[in-house]
Amino acid sequence: MNKQYVYMFSEGNATMRNTLGGKGANLSEMTHLGLPVPQGFVVSTDACVRYYDESMIIDDEIVREIERKLNELEIVSGKKFGDNSNPLLVSVRSGARVSMPGMMDTILNLGMNDTVAASLYKVMGITAYDSYRRLIQMFSEVAMGVDKKHFDTDMQTVLKKYDIESDHDLTLEALKDVIERYKDTYIREVGKPFPDDPKEQLLLAIESVFKSWNTPRAKYYRKLNGFSDKWGTAVTIQEMVFGNMGQGSATGVAFSRNPATGEDSLYGEFLYNAQGEDVVAGTHTPLPMSDMKITMPEIYQKFYDYAKQLEKHYHDMQDMEFTVERGNLYLLQTRSGKRTAQAAVKIAIDLVNEGVMTKEEAVNAIDVNIIDALLHPQFDRKVLKEVQSIAKGLPASPGAATGVIAFTAAQAVHYYNKGKSVILTRHETSPEDIEGMHVSSGILTARGGMTSHAAVVARGMGKSCVVGCSDIVFHKFDEATINGKVYKEGDEISIDGGTGLVYDGKLKTQEVSISEDFETILKWSDEFSKLKVYTNADTPEDVQKALDFGAKGIGLVRTEHMFFESDRIRAVREMILSQSQTQREIALKKILPMQRKDFEDIFRLMKDLPVTIRYLDPPLHEFMPTATQDIEELAKVMNITTTDLREVIRSLHEYNPMMGHRGCRLAISYPEIALMQTQALIEAAINITKETGYTLQPEIMIPLVGDVSEFNYLATRIRELSDKLIKDANVDVNYRVGTMIELPRACILADEIAVEADFLSFGTNDLTQMTYGFSRDDAGGFLNDYLDKHIYTSDPFSSLDTQGVSQLIDIAIEKARSVKPNIKIGICGEHGGDPKSIAYFKQAGFDYVSCSPYRVPIARIALGQK
Amino acid sequence: MNKQYVYMFSEGNATMRNTLGGKGANLSEMTHLGLPVPQGFVVSTDACVRYYDESMIIDDEIVREIERKLNELEIVSGKKFGDNSNPLLVSVRSGARVSMPGMMDTILNLGMNDTVAASLYKVMGITAYDSYRRLIQMFSEVAMGVDKKHFDTDMQTVLKKYDIESDHDLTLEALKDVIERYKDTYIREVGKPFPDDPKEQLLLAIESVFKSWNTPRAKYYRKLNGFSDKWGTAVTIQEMVFGNMGQGSATGVAFSRNPATGEDSLYGEFLYNAQGEDVVAGTHTPLPMSDMKITMPEIYQKFYDYAKQLEKHYHDMQDMEFTVERGNLYLLQTRSGKRTAQAAVKIAIDLVNEGVMTKEEAVNAIDVNIIDALLHPQFDRKVLKEVQSIAKGLPASPGAATGVIAFTAAQAVHYYNKGKSVILTRHETSPEDIEGMHVSSGILTARGGMTSHAAVVARGMGKSCVVGCSDIVFHKFDEATINGKVYKEGDEISIDGGTGLVYDGKLKTQEVSISEDFETILKWSDEFSKLKVYTNADTPEDVQKALDFGAKGIGLVRTEHMFFESDRIRAVREMILSQSQTQREIALKKILPMQRKDFEDIFRLMKDLPVTIRYLDPPLHEFMPTATQDIEELAKVMNITTTDLREVIRSLHEYNPMMGHRGCRLAISYPEIALMQTQALIEAAINITKETGYTLQPEIMIPLVGDVSEFNYLATRIRELSDKLIKDANVDVNYRVGTMIELPRACILADEIAVEADFLSFGTNDLTQMTYGFSRDDAGGFLNDYLDKHIYTSDPFSSLDTQGVSQLIDIAIEKARSVKPNIKIGICGEHGGDPKSIAYFKQAGFDYVSCSPYRVPIARIALGQK
Repeated sequence: MNKQYVYMFSEGNATMRNTLGGKGANLSEMTHLGLPVPQGFVVSTDACVRYYDESMIIDDEIVREIERKLNELEIVSGKKFGDNSNPLLVSVRSGARVSMPGMMDTILNLGMNDTVAASLYKVMGITAYDSYRRLIQMFSEVAMGVDKKHFDTDMQTVLKKYDIESDHDLTLEALKDVIERYKDTYIREVGKPFPDDPKEQLLLAIESVFKSWNTPRAKYYRKLNGFSDKWGTAVTIQEMVFGNMGQGSATGVAFSRNPATGEDSLYGEFLYNAQGEDVVAGTHTPLPMSDMKITMPEIYQKFYDYAKQLEKHYHDMQDMEFTVERGNLYLLQTRSGKRTAQAAVKIAIDLVNEGVMTKEEAVNAIDVNIIDALLHPQFDRKVLKEVQSIAKGLPASPGAATGVIAFTAAQAVHYYNKGKSVILTRHETSPEDIEGMHVSSGILTARGGMTSHAAVVARGMGKSCVVGCSDIVFHKFDEATINGKVYKEGDEISIDGGTGLVYDGKLKTQEVSISEDFETILKWSDEFSKLKVYTNADTPEDVQKALDFGAKGIGLVRTEHMFFESDRIRAVREMILSQSQTQREIALKKILPMQRKDFEDIFRLMKDLPVTIRYLDPPLHEFMPTATQDIEELAKVMNITTTDLREVIRSLHEYNPMMGHRGCRLAISYPEIALMQTQALIEAAINITKETGYTLQPEIMIPLVGDVSEFNYLATRIRELSDKLIKDANVDVNYRVGTMIELPRACILADEIAVEADFLSFGTNDLTQMTYGFSRDDAGGFLNDYLDKHIYTSDPFSSLDTQGVSQLIDIAIEKARSVKPNIKIGICGEHGGDPKSIAYFKQAGFDYVSCSPYRVPIARIALGQK
Repeated sequence: MNKQYVYMFSEGNATMRNTLGGKGANLSEMTHLGLPVPQGFVVSTDACVRYYDESMIIDDEIVREIERKLNELEIVSGKKFGDNSNPLLVSVRSGARVSMPGMMDTILNLGMNDTVAASLYKVMGITAYDSYRRLIQMFSEVAMGVDKKHFDTDMQTVLKKYDIESDHDLTLEALKDVIERYKDTYIREVGKPFPDDPKEQLLLAIESVFKSWNTPRAKYYRKLNGFSDKWGTAVTIQEMVFGNMGQGSATGVAFSRNPATGEDSLYGEFLYNAQGEDVVAGTHTPLPMSDMKITMPEIYQKFYDYAKQLEKHYHDMQDMEFTVERGNLYLLQTRSGKRTAQAAVKIAIDLVNEGVMTKEEAVNAIDVNIIDALLHPQFDRKVLKEVQSIAKGLPASPGAATGVIAFTAAQAVHYYNKGKSVILTRHETSPEDIEGMHVSSGILTARGGMTSHAAVVARGMGKSCVVGCSDIVFHKFDEATINGKVYKEGDEISIDGGTGLVYDGKLKTQEVSISEDFETILKWSDEFSKLKVYTNADTPEDVQKALDFGAKGIGLVRTEHMFFESDRIRAVREMILSQSQTQREIALKKILPMQRKDFEDIFRLMKDLPVTIRYLDPPLHEFMPTATQDIEELAKVMNITTTDLREVIRSLHEYNPMMGHRGCRLAISYPEIALMQTQALIEAAINITKETGYTLQPEIMIPLVGDVSEFNYLATRIRELSDKLIKDANVDVNYRVGTMIELPRACILADEIAVEADFLSFGTNDLTQMTYGFSRDDAGGFLNDYLDKHIYTSDPFSSLDTQGVSQLIDIAIEKARSVKPNIKIGICGEHGGDPKSIAYFKQAGFDYVSCSPYRVPIARIALGQK
């Protein structure tokens, strides 16, 4: 049997989404439900794929199949395509497996020509010619790419000629005039006459749907969302019904519940005596559905009942298109409705309470990608209505932030120390700016994309960030122009990382707290999740936020972030620049009490939950002063010349710092650093155990291990010191020593490592870098080329590479569990908070995912979903 | 049963090398062969390992075992340790599984004290006291680290006091005086009296052997050779025989064949009436073995017969120590003799011809590490006819070397670090000089024979060496006179290790051609090898050299090396800095003819052998001008301002260039580069096919592929253009398009890649970098710490990591062959010429290894070995 490429609605169902597209699958499903759906057929996505495989020609075999299905539709409808007496008209729509901007719009009234129009005129009256002129215009614009303005000109000419006010009031004569002018325009713009043959119209329309799959907009959207270019689109061909048949006719779109608030009432818009495109085109002002309840109460009630039936059937809130033709209601489309985060939560809870959904379905119904909005401070909505933005960039990390402009990391630190909230405003950021980013409330850059350094680091820090804002022009170190206005260092601005908008001055923000409904959804999610959610947090504030959001542990405390604090960076620098172990130990002694206090604060909050503390990780030069003043001050403290100090700093330079002297390599060269951190950590644990009586769970994590010998060298020393301190204090502290798995070699040798380590945590950022062989900071140079040229479908730093990197993780987990079946395994890279990556983590055998505090609720829901 | 830690010679054999050390195992084997070996026992390497495991204490259990074996030796020898009437004396020697500089020297005459000496005097005469004073001195120096100069002073005092000329002529009274003084020196320097108790002497001696395992010298040597610090050393305790019993007594060392030339005659040195250390100490001038043939013909004949028996037994040339005690010949040690590369080849061929070895054994007998010497330059013969040598010494290790004089190891390192070729010029060398020898091109000493430290170590390192050049007189640390002319540190000289001649200044060297014997060995090697040897070569000169050395293809032409040529770098820069595709194509047009000629030259030489050409690989900024003048010139050519040009150059900066925009990523961003290279390559192939009629085998290699889409994107375009060019030219060119596997992700996804690629070649340099997560350029910062702290046993860039990286290679090969069983797989990283890595490549399923031209013969032999 040959492969089937074309399906009647009655042959399909809702599960055939990938073949029929969302639209076609739902029309099929509604047909089976006995709902009033004009019948039709679907040219499948397979036909589209084949179209592209075969040099953009629709194969004869498929053309014949389309003709056969058209015959079937003629039988079902009792009408005939192009017939003089009882002609069939159809609509043609695109429909991929997910809806997608840039795809072809609907073409209505296909099948019209002069003869058909004359014949239909007898039945429909003037609507027949109105539909005809609409077909020519839509076909020209949508399928042939003719500019709308030509038709507008034609229409204006006719309206003037006949002195008619609106296109709603055209006389038969005027309409016929319009049609002739439209046909002339077509031949002028397209180069050949408007096709008279309905079948030619249909095939051209189908082909233009196929072509619309590859418009730049559609491609861009797929790139952005990581959808495959190989899915293709389906084409839905459906018998026309007419909302423009005068009195008692209407057309509109409506949600089964309010998509902004979640309130349970039909919510939407409609127009009397119109066709579908009038509602969306914005040329006529549509009426709210509440009007319909009054003017067409029976239709409204019927529609409401259908909506509830569909909600019950699909177990979700629906977004529907409908047409009323002379008092008869038809449903033209249904799909799950898009909604705000707030509505999503309310609807899910309500549907469960109404018995429409199970708790599990409610959890699955939440679109985790929009939940972010519930978790970050936002600007006051009332305020936003009143102000104008001054610039727009890419929304790189959500949340609203206000503060004074700092043009350098040093300025940021300066203002932060003065107690000011700071917006770090840079051409682009680099690892040298980390300290400045850390103390800023928001980050704004003129260059870079969604995976630029600023974007990635800001997301990791949970800070508001707008990147690629090309409206900013920098003049000097302390001045920039934003859309013509000069801003100086210290001036106030506001940025919205959720929209990419930049505002002048300090806008009012409102903190968001988790609603009761949201809390319920999160609780339900946990019930269906086999993994725990930990957090990556370095400060007591972050820790508290994560606990509020339901984190069950800390998967990553980056101790170096503590080192950047302004009151201790100098001691850290002194330590790094020490030329002897003794000198280094003196500097470490200064850091010890600060670090101990950091750990105490965290342990006190975390009580008996696990706290995974990663030892010093980044290349040392990241801590180095660059400003002359800082160098001079440090030289004085260290009692060396600035020349000597500069020489030491220079000697720390590395060609590829990402692949240099960092991670556990630092601690192996200078074990005294790891020992200081151990002393601080264990003493803190002892103190807080004494203070609170909780059984703490400190987990010491050694970074960047590639060989079990590295782990053993450090773990032996760490355990020795820890045991001694614990014994001397006579307090029970159950610390554990584990490692990050972030190098390909560590994956391959995970069995050897697992024998020695108490736990493993995958650092998927570095693992992705090393597996692909490119660094996040440098990938910007070619990643866009890769996405444009379809070499990658998504950025592996956003969502875990489930082809390659995942295989290394699978190997590692299998090897580790082969020697220690119950070893605790987590993931603490940025992928930990990414729903797409979580889908993989769920089935890969992890015990927990760890993510930034603001991603904790998202991770909880994603983990609860199927 | 308890583990055995101590073995009688009669309990061991040659296979127990790892437990008994080389010395102990061979003494055991000789015992079984019925050769005249003084009996004894071996404290095993396991005892040494346990010594270090147990905080450097010899366990009581082992002490008791030593005592039991000592009792057995007493029974076998019929003598008793410390006995008054018939005392047993023993020697104590270190012996690891491989011989190693820095280990403890021999201690002879152990078991002596006042009573024993008095008793032995009755039997041995004055030799008894001579042996006693030697024991005290050796024990003090070797086991207790007392400085030799104290004993020299004592000896000088006594010689003066009794007016005696040499220590050979001491009277009984004088000897007793010496002994008393030595004992005083001992108590003064060591802090307690010289131990009287023979058992105490023995245990202290054994412990000091254990300690010598961890001297800095021994550790450095192990690090250099990648030997494990965990092997430990054995200790051999053997009954003394005396070469210093007057007339008819002698001691010496000899090879069964000439170790410099391979000539078949006993070759060595001996001393009448002496103990072993006199021969190596250089204090007395030894006689050649040919003298012994005349003075002791029967002993000589017996020794010759034993030597031949040992050669037949071990299937190899032997290096033996012997002692003649009053007309009785004893063998004290045998081992495979170190030899020059030239001798190695001759001996192997001779032994096969004599039926002692099979061809396979002959190939396996070659030490690939010294073969280098046959492959390095010799002095130009014409030049040699015109110049006069300034001095002559012994030709200790062949090869010509020129360089600046360094009088100390530290100076040698200093000049080496400045990029200079160095001739280390010393009175004599000692183990402290190892590092200096390692960095020198040649070694020249004023004293010592063919078995002196300098000679032995230089041969081991395959370095040119002239010893015993008594024409050199040293004045200070930075000056010496050679035959009247003053030479200062840094002056240039030349030495010929094949002739022993020394020349003033820097002589011209010439390439060496492969001898007939060597050619035979290479041919035999090929017979036993399953893999082919290709070469990495970028220039016609390199290609020719590799062909001369037997390369069967080119595994890697680095096209970027061609780009650096001074006449084309500007066009390359122009291409890189182009701001549009058009601009870039103009620059590429300039490069095309040059690149085409490069390929033509190579194809012409390679004829029908495979030529694998890698497309542009390094980060673009590597090509950028940095000098102001270059930037200004380039700006002029490109018609832009220097400011703009500097900005473009700055924009090419990458944080981690190794992980940035390079490899195939360049060609994906700028396909026109790959297309220019394709055009150059295919046109060159067409031209040379027409010119020569050969069926060329060009193989196009795309670097740094991590995803099959990258490969396909480029391969499609490359094949399209190639096919068109070939079709237009109407010439048959069987080009292939393959890729390098050098990223972990490429290994994991090698099956997907192999479906599309015609061949795979592992780039193990980059693969090692990415798998370990450190770059070769930056690893210097910690790799020494890693080796010092025993975290790594060797540098993974020198020898392939056969724990981790090899697993990725195994996975890749298995996956690739699972989809394309016969796909050609090679390796073109630097590991390709490393014998240790080759051992892995042989069994991993590779078709070929590719290495630099000078490593080709080494790779051929290594591949032929088991």
